[in-house]
Amino acid sequence: MEYSSKLLENAVYEMSQLPGIGKRTALRLVLHLLKQPEERTAFLAGSLMKLREEINFCSSCHNISDTALCEICANPKRDESLVCVVEDIRDVMAIENTSQYQGLYHVLGGKISPMEGVGPQDLNIVSLVTKVKMGKVKELIFALSSTMEGDTTNFYIYKQLEGTDITTSTIARGISVGDELEYADEVTLGRSILNRVPFESSIKAN
Amino acid sequence: MEYSSKLLENAVYEMSQLPGIGKRTALRLVLHLLKQPEERTAFLAGSLMKLREEINFCSSCHNISDTALCEICANPKRDESLVCVVEDIRDVMAIENTSQYQGLYHVLGGKISPMEGVGPQDLNIVSLVTKVKMGKVKELIFALSSTMEGDTTNFYIYKQLEGTDITTSTIARGISVGDELEYADEVTLGRSILNRVPFESSIKAN
Ligand SMILES: [Zn+2]
Ligand SMILES: [Zn+2]
Repeated sequence: MEYSSKLLENAVYEMSQLPGIGKRTALRLVLHLLKQPEERTAFLAGSLMKLREEINFCSSCHNISDTALCEICANPKRDESLVCVVEDIRDVMAIENTSQYQGLYHVLGGKISPMEGVGPQDLNIVSLVTKVKMGKVKELIFALSSTMEGDTTNFYIYKQLEGTDITTSTIARGISVGDELEYADEVTLGRSILNRVPFESSIKAN
Repeated sequence: MEYSSKLLENAVYEMSQLPGIGKRTALRLVLHLLKQPEERTAFLAGSLMKLREEINFCSSCHNISDTALCEICANPKRDESLVCVVEDIRDVMAIENTSQYQGLYHVLGGKISPMEGVGPQDLNIVSLVTKVKMGKVKELIFALSSTMEGDTTNFYIYKQLEGTDITTSTIARGISVGDELEYADEVTLGRSILNRVPFESSIKAN
């Protein structure tokens, strides 16, 4: 595509670097911003820059947080003996949305995926194992998506915990295998946390 | 949705103000930026701000241009007796892409749409009529989308030009009625410009 303006071309290029946004969509979005008051673009650009520059992760669970310890970890009413292991902060949001869970979380930041070059050292696993070995956690709930990468990650963590007396469970799957957690409806997701099963039995079931 | 960070919530909100971007997609895009090096966000935010602040429209055809007169209008090889009337700069890009057209353009900036509160005064129509009355233009090619709004706009301009001896035509529609110009394939679109028909006959055909 030929652009009549280098400024326009640059903006479209940068927009099209976002996942799932092609050149055509990027152009449509940029032209939309041009039709809006200038402050709309300033608010968008400003909020992205501010987030990127000031982003902070909870020192305990690695959730995105504006404070050193996130609101969930800092809440004395939450049960700190229960830790739900998730891939992504979107999973925390999805589970919180069910209002069914009163424990804490641990955000791994991804799944082990040799195909995509993601190894255990790229994820927040060491801090999880350390947390467990400090003895306050009684049960880990694995809530990764039930894909090969999710299963591999669960199993890797499970092996790291050998020798501790921690109970491990996985969330019950009312949701179909391979589905992303964040797209599950609240009722199903809430129930699957309440009906979690011991991790050992989920290995045998496979 | 509950966000664990106000900074995150703001960024997602601003992103979701873009057309076709829901809250969920906005969150995905923002989290993607957080995983990228900080400069990716800086480039995106910077290019949008720079475009919005320094945006300039060609003083003759109203295309987006980094110079006072756009490259097309400033090109002495282009036929200034021929002006193609389009809705949007995306239509200029689509027609230029066919390499079939050697005239100039006039970008209206939209279509007359009482439903959306867009009247003739909101579009670049006065400057088009003035341009025609100055006498250099021999033919106007209407290339708006063939919707009710497009037809209304064509007809409004046509009436404004009564008393001039300008020739008016509309692009030949090999493309199905109601289709957006920018999604037409290059061959069809190029041919429809070459095979344009007198505007009067297109009114009678309706
Ligand atoms: Zn936390
Ligand atoms: Zn121009």
